[in-house]
Amino acid sequence: MKIPVIGVYQTKFGELWHQSLTDLILEAGRGALTDAGLAIRDIETIFVGNMLAGLTQGQEHLTSVVASVLGSSVPVVRVEAACASGGMAVHQAVLAILSGEAETALVVGAEKMTDQPAEEIAQALMAAASPEEQEAGLTFPGLYALLAQEYLRAFGATERDLAQVAVKNHHHASLNPRSHFPFPVTLNQVLASSPIADPLKLLDCSPVSDGAAAVVLASSAWVKRRAQKNGISIVGSGQASDVLGLSERRSLVELAATRQAAHKALSAAGAEAKDVSVAEVHDCFTIAEILALEDLGFYKKGEGYVVEGNGEVRLGGKRPINTSGGLKACGHPVGATGVKQIVETVWQLREAAGKRQVPHPRLALTHNVGGSGGTCVVHLLAR
Amino acid sequence: MKIPVIGVYQTKFGELWHQSLTDLILEAGRGALTDAGLAIRDIETIFVGNMLAGLTQGQEHLTSVVASVLGSSVPVVRVEAACASGGMAVHQAVLAILSGEAETALVVGAEKMTDQPAEEIAQALMAAASPEEQEAGLTFPGLYALLAQEYLRAFGATERDLAQVAVKNHHHASLNPRSHFPFPVTLNQVLASSPIADPLKLLDCSPVSDGAAAVVLASSAWVKRRAQKNGISIVGSGQASDVLGLSERRSLVELAATRQAAHKALSAAGAEAKDVSVAEVHDCFTIAEILALEDLGFYKKGEGYVVEGNGEVRLGGKRPINTSGGLKACGHPVGATGVKQIVETVWQLREAAGKRQVPHPRLALTHNVGGSGGTCVVHLLAR
Repeated sequence: MKIPVIGVYQTKFGELWHQSLTDLILEAGRGALTDAGLAIRDIETIFVGNMLAGLTQGQEHLTSVVASVLGSSVPVVRVEAACASGGMAVHQAVLAILSGEAETALVVGAEKMTDQPAEEIAQALMAAASPEEQEAGLTFPGLYALLAQEYLRAFGATERDLAQVAVKNHHHASLNPRSHFPFPVTLNQVLASSPIADPLKLLDCSPVSDGAAAVVLASSAWVKRRAQKNGISIVGSGQASDVLGLSERRSLVELAATRQAAHKALSAAGAEAKDVSVAEVHDCFTIAEILALEDLGFYKKGEGYVVEGNGEVRLGGKRPINTSGGLKACGHPVGATGVKQIVETVWQLREAAGKRQVPHPRLALTHNVGGSGGTCVVHLLAR
Repeated sequence: MKIPVIGVYQTKFGELWHQSLTDLILEAGRGALTDAGLAIRDIETIFVGNMLAGLTQGQEHLTSVVASVLGSSVPVVRVEAACASGGMAVHQAVLAILSGEAETALVVGAEKMTDQPAEEIAQALMAAASPEEQEAGLTFPGLYALLAQEYLRAFGATERDLAQVAVKNHHHASLNPRSHFPFPVTLNQVLASSPIADPLKLLDCSPVSDGAAAVVLASSAWVKRRAQKNGISIVGSGQASDVLGLSERRSLVELAATRQAAHKALSAAGAEAKDVSVAEVHDCFTIAEILALEDLGFYKKGEGYVVEGNGEVRLGGKRPINTSGGLKACGHPVGATGVKQIVETVWQLREAAGKRQVPHPRLALTHNVGGSGGTCVVHLLAR
C-alpha cells in the first residue's frame, strides 16, 4: 500500500473561543489544500471525522456542512467512532482511493468542545462507553483508572511511572506552538495535582480542547501525472474492534484492538514494530500511552512503563513517542486527534518539525483509540 | 461495477417497544447472515448506518456496540449522514470491497425513535438542518412544505397531486407485512388529514419509526470461489453533496445532489434512467417523491406529478415506485431507510416480493436523501 499524503494542516489546539466548529473546519481544510498546492475543485471526495457535533452543536449533518463551507458538491462522508473518528476518517479515505472511487481525498477532523460546561462534555463523552458503564456512573478517567489500577497491581509499576508520561509529553508540547499546553511540568507537579480517579490525577489526564486538522491524500498515479513531489505516503492502514464494556474484556492490561490494528497495518507495510522511528500514540490518560507502547509491539507486556522515565521515548531518545505532546499536552479535540497524528508524523518525515524534529526518521506510526479500546486505527507512514 | 448482494433482511418497521436499538441491530445482522448462509466469522468488515443514537440513546460508539452484539473484532465503521446514513453505509461498504480491504461486508442500518417524546425527536431531526433553519424554528415538514409551495406554484400541480403519492404508497404498504402502516388510505382521507405545514398534511408525512435492515455484500471473486449463486449485484453507486440550507440553493424545485448522484450511479452501471424497472425513492414527504421522479431522470422537470394519479408508478404500472410503501407508509427509521431500500429491491430482483412483485424486473434503483437534499446516495442493482 502506498497512498501519498500531499498536504497537511493543524490549527492551534486549545480553548478557541473565537472560532466555531465551521471556522475550524474551514481553516484546516483550506490549510491542507494550500499545503498541497490544490484548490477545492481538485478534490474528488471528502471525509469528516467528528464525534460530538450532534450532542453539543445540534448538528448531525456535517457532510452537508462541509460541502457548504468548503464550497464543494463532491461526496462527503462523516465517519464517527468516538475518539477514533479522525483515524477512521483517514482509513476510509485510504479505502476510497484504493477502490478507484476517487484520486484525491480531503480528510478533516474537527471538534468544538469548550463552549459547553465541563459536566455536559463529560456526559457527552460517556456516549462512547457501554450502557452499563454509563448507568454505573463511570467517567472516562474512571474507566482508565480501572485499567491503571490493574496494570500497577500486575506489573509493580507506580504512580511515578505514570507521571513520567505526563512530564515527557508536556516537554514535547513545550516545543510545539500548536499545543494546548505549551509548557513543561515537573514530576512533583504531576504527583501533587488533584486526584481525579485513583491512581489518575489531573495531570495524568488529557484536556478538553477545540481544534481541527486536515490532510490531503492522492493516488500514486495522480501524483505521478501531476508531477507532484511524492514525499510522504501512508504505507499501512489497519483497524480493529473490541467489545464495548471493560467488564466483557478478557484482559484489563491490554487493548486487543490495538494489537490487531497494529498487526494489520504493519503487515500491509511489510514492516515490524522495531522499524518504527517515531510514533504518535493515543495517550488520553498516561496509562494509555504505556499500554499502547506494549500493545503496538514496541515493548513486551509489563515492560513499557520502564522506558517512560529513562529517556528512550523522549525527544533525543531511541524512538520518540508523541513528539507533538500527544493528546495529553498537545490537546484532544476528539474528532481531530486521529488526523492531527498523521499531520505530526508527516512533519517529522518531511523533517519539518522544528524544535521537535527527530533525526532522519524513515517510518512513523499513528495510533488512535475509540472509547476504552472498542475501536482502534493504526497507520504507518514512510518517506 | 459488480458487487454481489448475497444476503438481505428487514425487521418489521413500526413502534417496536419490545425491541431496543441493539435488539434491532442483532435481529437484522443475524437475519442477513442467515439469508446469505454465512456466520459472523465469515464477515471481514461491518458498516453501520445510524443518525440519532447519540442524541436519543446517549450512545455514539456504535462501532463497538455492533462488535459487541454480533461478536466480531473486524473493522466496524459507523457512517452518519442524517437520513442518508443507511445509503451512505452501503456506499462505503462497496468502496471497502472495491479497495480490496475486505471480500465480505455486512451493512446494518438501524434506528430507535419511538422511545422519545415526539417533540424531542422533531428537535433531534433538526440536527440535519442548517443553523439558520434551526434558529428560525423550522421543522422538516416546514422545510419540505417550502419546496412543495414552490413546486405547486411553478408547475400548477395541486394538493390533490401530492395526496396521490400517499394513496399509492399506502396501497403498496398494505401488501407489505413489514410496513409500519400496512393499510390503504383514500384521497379524501389524505386531503382531510390535519394540516402540518401548508400545503403538507399529516398523511403527506412519513412517520417516526423503529426498525433495522441489513445486507451482506461480497466481491465477485469471493462468490465465485465459494460457488455461491451469484444472484443480484450492485452495479452502480453514486453519492453527491449540496449546501445545507434551502436559502443557499439555486433552485427550490429540484435537489441537485439527487441529479448528480443518479448521474454517477447510472454512468457506473452503463445504464439510463429509462432502463430502470422498479425503484425505491426517498419520499419522506409526498413532494419529495415527485421531485425524485424528476431529478432521477424518470420524468422531465415539472411533469412528475402527473403520473402519480394515472397508475404509471403504481404496482401494475410501467415502473412501480416504492413497492415497499416507501418512507411514507413502510416507515422511516432514519438510519435503516437506505439499507431497507436495497433489501426491497433485492427482493424484487429475486422475484421474492410476494404480493408486491413487479413482473420480471431487470434493473432497480434506490435513492436516499439526507436532510432537505444536502446529501444523496443512489444505487443501481441488477440480476
